Amino acid sequence: MGTLSLPPQATRVGLAVDVAAFAMHAGELRVLLVQRGELPHARDWALPGGFVQPGEALHEAALRELRTETTVELEPRHLEQFYTFGEPSRDPRGRIVSVAHLAVLPHGTVRVTGGGHTLGADWFPAHHPPRLAFDHAAILDRAIGRLQLRLEYANLALEFLPDAFTLPELQTVYEGVLDRSLDKRNFRKRILAQGILAASGERRSGVGRPAQLYRRAKGARTAAL
Amino acid sequence: MGTLSLPPQATRVGLAVDVAAFAMHAGELRVLLVQRGELPHARDWALPGGFVQPGEALHEAALRELRTETTVELEPRHLEQFYTFGEPSRDPRGRIVSVAHLAVLPHGTVRVTGGGHTLGADWFPAHHPPRLAFDHAAILDRAIGRLQLRLEYANLALEFLPDAFTLPELQTVYEGVLDRSLDKRNFRKRILAQGILAASGERRSGVGRPAQLYRRAKGARTAAL
Repeated sequence: MGTLSLPPQATRVGLAVDVAAFAMHAGELRVLLVQRGELPHARDWALPGGFVQPGEALHEAALRELRTETTVELEPRHLEQFYTFGEPSRDPRGRIVSVAHLAVLPHGTVRVTGGGHTLGADWFPAHHPPRLAFDHAAILDRAIGRLQLRLEYANLALEFLPDAFTLPELQTVYEGVLDRSLDKRNFRKRILAQGILAASGERRSGVGRPAQLYRRAKGARTAAL
Repeated sequence: MGTLSLPPQATRVGLAVDVAAFAMHAGELRVLLVQRGELPHARDWALPGGFVQPGEALHEAALRELRTETTVELEPRHLEQFYTFGEPSRDPRGRIVSVAHLAVLPHGTVRVTGGGHTLGADWFPAHHPPRLAFDHAAILDRAIGRLQLRLEYANLALEFLPDAFTLPELQTVYEGVLDRSLDKRNFRKRILAQGILAASGERRSGVGRPAQLYRRAKGARTAAL
């Protein structure tokens, strides 16, 4: 029995990762994009991403590409692989399969500059992005869909916020991800009924009445799935 | 500008699909496995799967491998890609990335025989499988986890049943997928409250009282996600 090797019938493909990294800013869901410096789709905006290196795990490649291409220094609060895009014609350079990842960053004000082969990096409204390279509009659509599902059955919304936050701030995350307004009373009732929040006892002064601050309840299921 | 081609830094990998195909039989969740006829892991049981062909979409490859390797003639009631396994050392032949798919078949009594390069195909208890090749035990675990999530927020359970079914039959699917018993009264109450079932008006005679038959309610969200 000889050395094992890839059988001749195995299609060789290029293996890539792309990352849809989201954050909230001023009540808006934002996505981090880079401007491509190379062909194909040079000067178009795209999700950060690139080829997986030999010996590198998929999530390691996703973190490396996010850091290198956007220079973002924040650690993602959540990173998950959500879908693999493998349509044969999705890239004009040949068959390139992209394992798409979803990331949540703590806030969308952090300064980014383009790194690697990019011309720049910036935050854009996730529901109204510019024209995107390759099939990245479809990847972004599906990433937003996954984010919306995660609001439903995991408390991923908390990952967008600081440790202590007000109910209106939490409502803003839901509205930003869902891209629609919610009724304040119903939201309050539903979210408190889930038992994932604990009143911190502190209050934050604002324009009107000082608002109660909440934290994640001890033992509440985290978004890690 | 020359012809575009895969850049030299792109890692070339073998692209494969694997399919965890489930069905219910005698109150038990079963998974369809094939016995490998080739190295590596010859004679071990494995999920049906293999290399994607040039020009073939991922879900097409999943359906083709399922049919070819198991000779199953039923159409899956549900097919979804659920995770991509890309650990560098998962296959001794080289870097092979597997896009794993989850399928639900109408019932687990259908006769299967091995096709392609397999030595055979058969149904096994999904929660108590034999020793599996490669990282297929991890793939099966994650497939069962996804199936359990799908019970929670999509009515995938109905895909395991004929068009008309009794509540005890539906409870059996939940118990089979979750691998634990459920309280009959609570189950009845919770499932009817979801509004996904409609009483068909017919009854099926059994050992005791004739049982009410249910169908999917019109307009109920289907499992397609």
